[in-house]
Amino acid sequence: MSDWQEIPGGVTAPKGYKAAGITAGLKPSGLPDLALIFSDVEAIAAGVFTTSHVRAACVDYCRQRLQSKHSARAILCNAGQANAATGSQGWIDAIESAMLVAQTLNIPSESVLLASTGVIGQRIRMEALIAGIPQLVNALSPTGGDAAAQAIITTDLVTKSIALETTIHDRPVRIGGISKGSGMIHPNMATMLAFVTCDAAVSTSLWQQMLSRAADRSFNQITVDGDTSTNDSLIALANGESRTPAITEMGAEAEKLEAMLTAVCQHLAKAIARDGEGATCLIEVEVTGASDEKAARQIAKTIVGSSLVKSAIFGRDPNWGRIAAAAGRAGIPFDQENLRIQLGDFLLMENGQPLPFDRPAASAYLKAKAAGEYLKDDTVSISVSIGNGSASAKAWGCDLSYDYVKINAEYTT
Amino acid sequence: MSDWQEIPGGVTAPKGYKAAGITAGLKPSGLPDLALIFSDVEAIAAGVFTTSHVRAACVDYCRQRLQSKHSARAILCNAGQANAATGSQGWIDAIESAMLVAQTLNIPSESVLLASTGVIGQRIRMEALIAGIPQLVNALSPTGGDAAAQAIITTDLVTKSIALETTIHDRPVRIGGISKGSGMIHPNMATMLAFVTCDAAVSTSLWQQMLSRAADRSFNQITVDGDTSTNDSLIALANGESRTPAITEMGAEAEKLEAMLTAVCQHLAKAIARDGEGATCLIEVEVTGASDEKAARQIAKTIVGSSLVKSAIFGRDPNWGRIAAAAGRAGIPFDQENLRIQLGDFLLMENGQPLPFDRPAASAYLKAKAAGEYLKDDTVSISVSIGNGSASAKAWGCDLSYDYVKINAEYTT
Repeated sequence: MSDWQEIPGGVTAPKGYKAAGITAGLKPSGLPDLALIFSDVEAIAAGVFTTSHVRAACVDYCRQRLQSKHSARAILCNAGQANAATGSQGWIDAIESAMLVAQTLNIPSESVLLASTGVIGQRIRMEALIAGIPQLVNALSPTGGDAAAQAIITTDLVTKSIALETTIHDRPVRIGGISKGSGMIHPNMATMLAFVTCDAAVSTSLWQQMLSRAADRSFNQITVDGDTSTNDSLIALANGESRTPAITEMGAEAEKLEAMLTAVCQHLAKAIARDGEGATCLIEVEVTGASDEKAARQIAKTIVGSSLVKSAIFGRDPNWGRIAAAAGRAGIPFDQENLRIQLGDFLLMENGQPLPFDRPAASAYLKAKAAGEYLKDDTVSISVSIGNGSASAKAWGCDLSYDYVKINAEYTT
Repeated sequence: MSDWQEIPGGVTAPKGYKAAGITAGLKPSGLPDLALIFSDVEAIAAGVFTTSHVRAACVDYCRQRLQSKHSARAILCNAGQANAATGSQGWIDAIESAMLVAQTLNIPSESVLLASTGVIGQRIRMEALIAGIPQLVNALSPTGGDAAAQAIITTDLVTKSIALETTIHDRPVRIGGISKGSGMIHPNMATMLAFVTCDAAVSTSLWQQMLSRAADRSFNQITVDGDTSTNDSLIALANGESRTPAITEMGAEAEKLEAMLTAVCQHLAKAIARDGEGATCLIEVEVTGASDEKAARQIAKTIVGSSLVKSAIFGRDPNWGRIAAAAGRAGIPFDQENLRIQLGDFLLMENGQPLPFDRPAASAYLKAKAAGEYLKDDTVSISVSIGNGSASAKAWGCDLSYDYVKINAEYTT
């Protein structure tokens, strides 16, 4: 039993938040493409961004903002153009977007954060954005979470949204979130975005630390095709509107809040890993017996990112050999004689050697997950133990099908 | 114009070497599966092996041999079973194989090196091996290079063999080599092997250094699906039979020898990258303007290993955005405003921003390479400059097609 329960509303579930999502005409498709998340009061803000050396203007903009000022009130997100590789003009477009939203909301422009997702090398369609902002601000609503979730996606098959509620100091505290990003990354569009809202009162440094740790246990542990984009961004706001006493240091309340924040991030991250044309299941790899969490994470991510493992899962092949090989090449030393591999309930390998097991049944397990209910019963579980200590970690991905290639090789002049 | 010329013979082209390849019955298919390379005299030996922590018995065996004794006379290679994840019995099988070959050849067992390729978790079919060794030794011939090349492959579509000849101290010196490994890695079989023979006289430490550097510029710079196997091995022998004065320190002769060794390794490595069902071309990425060679190598390998880049090439899509994104996430810092990307003769990006270019012509270039003569005119060239210095490096791979997935998802109980 969790310490929290799921509630509706997504990013607008926590107190004091509004959101909106409209069609401004940035996307050629005519689908919703401009989203806004707004806090009634200035909120503590933290972010985790792509570490790529080729970064979009919005990423650098946010990093600069958050370095000098650890709070914000609004997050503007446009879908359709990534505003990456757009040089100084792209930078100007970003600042202009922020200023315009700030003016319309009557808040300082320093309180606005930005995100973009779309085609690399294309500037934001500024005419459409400028024309759309008044409508966007007007559409802000305390039930606007779903509209926002819709307006940030590009090639995702489904929107990704969640909200959880717990009790801290006898008062309800909520965390909501939306994300986008999919297993099948369409030509020229490849970005993972996540926006999290919280109504607890937290100190600046603690909130950033919590978010970084949560990211390391969620978004940084998913892999779809191994590619990190130019625009990846995770932004989290905490506005204190729950009226709980401020959490300023680690302790029972802080741990509970961080655990719920991690759960929100993991839900959104897994949803990304699961999404995508062709992917038929979610793969969850848990590594145990590592000397530290970082080592466990590295091995887990290597396994779930292995093309050979992913395609074996697609082929419903309980291929322990490929899992073992992937574990071995993760860069973490271990004694192969301690290697233990389990797939679902099937023990495939122990003490570094294969065990006899019911192959048809194991294959049937894989087939069942491919037919299982979306994000409820479609997780293939792989457990790997390496015998170095007691640290553990998880990573998530999806299977590799030929539809992945088909989509990514699609090209028309 | 090179300092050397290509000659026939593969591993038996250099003086004083014999080779053989026979069908011993290790492979279920009945194809050739046991190979032997033999030097008339004890040869200096060097090796580069998988760094995976899950390693086959033959790899550990070779590493131990080469640590205590830097010379060898024979390399025995079996195809069909990897002898990996086979525990202590696998170790015994390895030692037994070496002893048997040594006895039949009338040489010390310490002079025998081993390699295996095949199904992980399966022991070598020792009955067949034991029965086949006398026939194998009997088949040794100074023109046996091709037979050996044939007997080491598993799922390769073509054998891979080369020999080069140059002049050092006015005498002919030759280096030959064979390799196996393919872009399409069949379920449970995934290994890169390469065996190199040379008739120069070289000191032990220099030969190992040359081989390590050559490996870093060839085999360690190819990526097919990102997976390193449990069995990857590169073994090189230098037996002095060319009667050139021994090369014991760096200088003009040593540089020439190393350059030719590197050329042999690069030919064999590129052949691996190119091979495989579904791969329609070779992709060569050259990175220039790096601060050091290691950084250039890392970026080049990241680009050529990117699933998004590979599938774009398969789709004949001149997708500079994906190349830029891959370069940015390689872990090497650079100023994105210095990024320059060229595809064949097409300049796609300069100073971090895209340039207008003839898209249909660039796509036609990609189509032409896919139809080009095998390893003669089927190389897609990608050049990336990052503006940090003057170091450069190359990496090779192949495009990603749905046949890759189809083959790797193939599974029958």
